[in-house]
Amino acid sequence: MTMLEQDVTVVPDFTHSDARIKELLDYMHEIADLEALTELIDWDQNTAMPKGAAQVRGAQMATLKGVLHERWTSPQLGNLLGELGKEFKQASFTDTDRGLVREALRGYEHATKLPRKLVEEMAHVQAASFDAWRSAREQSDFASFAPLLSRTVALQREVADRLGYDETPYDALLDKYEPGLTASKLDILFDPVCKVSQGMLQRIQASGNTVDASCLEGNFPLEQQLVLSERLLRNMGYDFLRGQLAQSPHPFTSSFGSPFDVRLTVRPNKRFIQAALKAAIHEGGHAVYEQGSAPMLARTPIAGGASMGAHESQSRLWENAIGRSEPYWQGQFAAVREVFPDQFAHVDVNTFARALNKVQPSLIRIEADEVTYNLHIIVRFELEKALINAGIAVESLPGLWNAKYREYLGIEPSNDAEGVLQDIHWTSSFGYFPTYTLGNLYAAQIFHTLRAAFPDFDERLAGGDTRFLLEWLQQRMYALGAIYQPEELIKRVTGEMPDPEYFTRYLTNKFEMIYNLPKIA
Amino acid sequence: MTMLEQDVTVVPDFTHSDARIKELLDYMHEIADLEALTELIDWDQNTAMPKGAAQVRGAQMATLKGVLHERWTSPQLGNLLGELGKEFKQASFTDTDRGLVREALRGYEHATKLPRKLVEEMAHVQAASFDAWRSAREQSDFASFAPLLSRTVALQREVADRLGYDETPYDALLDKYEPGLTASKLDILFDPVCKVSQGMLQRIQASGNTVDASCLEGNFPLEQQLVLSERLLRNMGYDFLRGQLAQSPHPFTSSFGSPFDVRLTVRPNKRFIQAALKAAIHEGGHAVYEQGSAPMLARTPIAGGASMGAHESQSRLWENAIGRSEPYWQGQFAAVREVFPDQFAHVDVNTFARALNKVQPSLIRIEADEVTYNLHIIVRFELEKALINAGIAVESLPGLWNAKYREYLGIEPSNDAEGVLQDIHWTSSFGYFPTYTLGNLYAAQIFHTLRAAFPDFDERLAGGDTRFLLEWLQQRMYALGAIYQPEELIKRVTGEMPDPEYFTRYLTNKFEMIYNLPKIA
Repeated sequence: MTMLEQDVTVVPDFTHSDARIKELLDYMHEIADLEALTELIDWDQNTAMPKGAAQVRGAQMATLKGVLHERWTSPQLGNLLGELGKEFKQASFTDTDRGLVREALRGYEHATKLPRKLVEEMAHVQAASFDAWRSAREQSDFASFAPLLSRTVALQREVADRLGYDETPYDALLDKYEPGLTASKLDILFDPVCKVSQGMLQRIQASGNTVDASCLEGNFPLEQQLVLSERLLRNMGYDFLRGQLAQSPHPFTSSFGSPFDVRLTVRPNKRFIQAALKAAIHEGGHAVYEQGSAPMLARTPIAGGASMGAHESQSRLWENAIGRSEPYWQGQFAAVREVFPDQFAHVDVNTFARALNKVQPSLIRIEADEVTYNLHIIVRFELEKALINAGIAVESLPGLWNAKYREYLGIEPSNDAEGVLQDIHWTSSFGYFPTYTLGNLYAAQIFHTLRAAFPDFDERLAGGDTRFLLEWLQQRMYALGAIYQPEELIKRVTGEMPDPEYFTRYLTNKFEMIYNLPKIA
Repeated sequence: MTMLEQDVTVVPDFTHSDARIKELLDYMHEIADLEALTELIDWDQNTAMPKGAAQVRGAQMATLKGVLHERWTSPQLGNLLGELGKEFKQASFTDTDRGLVREALRGYEHATKLPRKLVEEMAHVQAASFDAWRSAREQSDFASFAPLLSRTVALQREVADRLGYDETPYDALLDKYEPGLTASKLDILFDPVCKVSQGMLQRIQASGNTVDASCLEGNFPLEQQLVLSERLLRNMGYDFLRGQLAQSPHPFTSSFGSPFDVRLTVRPNKRFIQAALKAAIHEGGHAVYEQGSAPMLARTPIAGGASMGAHESQSRLWENAIGRSEPYWQGQFAAVREVFPDQFAHVDVNTFARALNKVQPSLIRIEADEVTYNLHIIVRFELEKALINAGIAVESLPGLWNAKYREYLGIEPSNDAEGVLQDIHWTSSFGYFPTYTLGNLYAAQIFHTLRAAFPDFDERLAGGDTRFLLEWLQQRMYALGAIYQPEELIKRVTGEMPDPEYFTRYLTNKFEMIYNLPKIA
């Protein structure tokens, strides 16, 4: 632990001795402000915007992205970065400076490779696509979404070609969310994940042992679910003075200026309490990560998460390793009982926590258990590769989707709303889904470190305390924003490079215990 | 009426024969898109933004206004406008072109006179000021708002000096909201308004006659008030597919791209039903005006209202001339009774409509009756002149405010929350308040024309029909956006230049009848 203690002393700070860092910060503040407005538009689009505004909002987003593109490709910025890019590894620069220069270079290169016209068109298509997706999902009508999806895929292909790649076009898209990630790296990382997930699912099903999750079903008024979500978020340490909880068709977290304005949404389901709880804790994990950024990083590209994988590691650490553990609920179950006294009067915390871990192949990714979750991701990963690298027609998607669900999970959607239309992602992004599983890997490794750091980990959780957790994470990880790239960050937090072994061990131990399975040597 | 019928044929259209109009439209679309985002920030700030975000949102708004300033002062735009400005009165241009060039010139001149640094500082101060005002109002603590108000006044003075004026600095601020308006013009216009208001108030008080408004008091759950507000707005023709109803501390209407996204807020009061009804119909008037803009004007500075006075004419036409008339409620009272069956079971529509017109000097402007309303405005007008032209200290405001209320209305606030802190306006704008009274003058004149155009006006309203009204207004006024300046627009709609006589006659006739007063020769 000595090494970890040393790392804690990293305090974000820009150098004050180089005027070029000050100049770069001026550029980055302006860009970060405009980026924050794109987030505000997205938030509004998902929580409030009337349908009739889709077209005009698309035009506005396109204009804003056009301005951003102009800023990112400014020749003056290019010259400044040309100089700083050569020197920023010198000892006179702080790690914070280096992170800033690195992300500024990344943004500059990204922007100079994509012409403004393309960026504006993508914004237009995204707005229209969101609208089409929302309607298509309501009516479970994939055909009405297909033309826009097809357009999005074509644009993503063009983006990949322009950004460039060594092996496959999809790699260029993956790199946007997780620097350096490639499909072939994922094939390797996902192989043990796929094996452990399928293996565990088979062992559970073969054992005949079951988990009774009936206490999570019933009648849960939406209003009260929001009250409970808010309680849990407050207990996690999510700061409502710098945030807000809202509802949207797909839960998400949005930051309009980390760490000062980080909001999240849930989508409560009247009959199943688990959806809102999971969403609150998952999005809460994203949100406390963003709220934990050092304030001095605000209005720069290194405020907030280090990568999507790093981000998902926090949402999934909170949602699963913590939020699906019995010690956690020992500390939080009183809140559940207070909000839903009738529903939980005769349910004990052990039953409740076990119920949250029921393994059952399901159709909806965001409702999946930990054993099958990554299989949902693998379906999407394979389809994204097929769309982007192999160029399959979007019209074949519903069929392929259903076939893969049958293959990996043994079940099949009865309509597209619970199948291929369930996620918002394909209205704008390809290459994002794999970061969820990557996040699971990081999360297991960080969880291991956390438990080692606090011998009384379970006792504290059971006492209702989660502040110790948040503080530890905040000092060692959240405060650092994107100063370090994900692999280096994980090494600083855990003392080791990312290793999928932590996840396979975590999953195996946890579900052997829950399902009372005999150990495998 | 022949002249009016001819004017109906004006259909907004840009010329297609001059490439420079196309080029100007490209500039204006970009600017209008960015302006819409400033509105979105405002909306968010008032309906959702967490308090902790005030500072970072101020920085973002400052950046956005900085970009807007850069766009408005672009030398290429200046050259284009230099050419078009000389030629745009030629016959080859349409009225729509002329309106576009005129407003573009206005924006360009405004921006070139105000340095970017000043614009950014104003945005910062506005965000901080809003936050301070919200807290100060909650705690009825003017002193905590005073330093920021003082800063705002100083900035407004600087704006006035830079924009220039012939007579007094305040004129430069008035002109921003109503082109060509001056304090001395207002002194003349407000004189008959002040006389008729004070005279009518004295006649009513001397008569000893009263209106029983007790049916408007009671217990009105907020949720149901929102339901009723929505019903009334739907009936008015407000289109929820292009809008949304929300709540905020001060009711307002915001457009993020007329006519496609126009939202409004109300502030229901549990004990008094009138606040929400008035706000819904008032803001509804603003909103249908914005939603009525010809779609081809979208994303230009001539979409939406012709001026603040023109805008207020519509909010107040709907709120007062229509929304406080018995025929209107004969058509709408069923909705009131349906939402609040217990409260209105034994109230007849005549009693209800009379109650809405009870004259009683009150402290809160937005709850004022039609007789005293303009006296509230005159208080603010005089204080704005004193702040901007005479340079009085902001610290003296609460005392002056209270003294003027005693003088004009015979009552005095017991705290600053119901006094000088009640309005949001002084967090950012001076010169706006007088346009409310100007709107009353225009509204009375338009109402006169409307009644002449529909001999069965009252019968239609009583039958629940307001579409005929909306259509008439939409074709003759709303569709035209800001193609014409307010005086010309009023002339086109009513056949005459603006004349305050319509208002004094309207007020006199209406309240002589309601309070059963003897006519004065």
